[in-house]
Amino acid sequence: MRIALLGGTGDIGRGLALRWGRDTEHELLIGSRDPERAREQAEAYTSELADRGADADFKGFENAMAADRADVVILAVPAYHLVDTVEAVADRLDPETVLVTPAVGMQRDEDGFHYNRPGPGSVAALAESAKPDDVPLVGAFHNLPAGGLADLDSEFEWDTLVFGEDEDAKATVSQLAAEIEGLRPVDIGGLANAAEVEAVTPLLINVAMNNDELHDLGVKFQ
Amino acid sequence: MRIALLGGTGDIGRGLALRWGRDTEHELLIGSRDPERAREQAEAYTSELADRGADADFKGFENAMAADRADVVILAVPAYHLVDTVEAVADRLDPETVLVTPAVGMQRDEDGFHYNRPGPGSVAALAESAKPDDVPLVGAFHNLPAGGLADLDSEFEWDTLVFGEDEDAKATVSQLAAEIEGLRPVDIGGLANAAEVEAVTPLLINVAMNNDELHDLGVKFQ
Repeated sequence: MRIALLGGTGDIGRGLALRWGRDTEHELLIGSRDPERAREQAEAYTSELADRGADADFKGFENAMAADRADVVILAVPAYHLVDTVEAVADRLDPETVLVTPAVGMQRDEDGFHYNRPGPGSVAALAESAKPDDVPLVGAFHNLPAGGLADLDSEFEWDTLVFGEDEDAKATVSQLAAEIEGLRPVDIGGLANAAEVEAVTPLLINVAMNNDELHDLGVKFQ
Repeated sequence: MRIALLGGTGDIGRGLALRWGRDTEHELLIGSRDPERAREQAEAYTSELADRGADADFKGFENAMAADRADVVILAVPAYHLVDTVEAVADRLDPETVLVTPAVGMQRDEDGFHYNRPGPGSVAALAESAKPDDVPLVGAFHNLPAGGLADLDSEFEWDTLVFGEDEDAKATVSQLAAEIEGLRPVDIGGLANAAEVEAVTPLLINVAMNNDELHDLGVKFQ
């Protein structure tokens, strides 16, 4: 499968790229607004995995080119770039492409981080309204700590909540999640359940901020 | 220590009562608006633990009488009764009493349960505005499944997030949480961080609704 990681040079994009690179055979397309930066980062990931004896296939492209070639497009960009990014690649998507949002909107005040719920109800709902109607959207990979995910020496047992209206698209993304060692996809229904999922990310940051012994936290439902 | 469980005949109250009854030596005051119902339930808990060979001390009182006698008062009532309940016991509280809210506001639609965030920012903020200024408020025990908590045959490893502005009061409640076997208190800062904690409860219900193999779910940060 071809997976495009738009924003694949950033925090969560880096972790997903390295994990899929190590744990799967998928073709990984690193997307960035700057194609040169995307190519450099793809080389860096390839080299990092080669040093670990893993033979992974990363290529770098400008975001729209990456999306055009991909079966699954991960919107690994900050929430405030989500709609821009969807609009920039919209005419490269088709009904066979699965669009995935891990994006979370947060704001910080003196007490910690807080979920900044957008007017349409969730960050995912913003993406839903920006994408072509016939392209399925799935939410996943919201509540993973970027540092722990990108550190291949770190082992974990984390859950990732998966939501969306298209069951086939959800199954595809759940399978990709399950292929990352230690990650379990957990179905949480439709797009209407997105806000509570997105709100877990600031909660995890607040837990880490208040507990020296807890860091790079994920969540497990048990 | 004397712990009053207002709404101690209900779901989460029942689980906390039975767990503290089995795992600690604390004096447990079961509160209800109906003192007769409180006494009957206290007898039922005593009898249930006696059948398991545990010698627990439950007494039943009308809510205000229970609050009057207690060092820690748990508001184990539905969110829509929280302010009523605080107001009904307010003149029985003093600055040495710790008030604890596990309450969560939810609404259900066809997709599942959703966090119903009150105007002041959280359910805990409603309790904060209803209580006497000098009585400390702590949030805890929000994200525990009532069924699994009350089933003493069930073992678990769950976290409970603890928030509040008074560090001593938080320490008292965290200690009480840690005394329940399998439960770990996790500090999440001040009252401003309450909403994300409260929103985890509908998320847990949605996970259980969408996954036959996952039920009576708690959460572990790791």
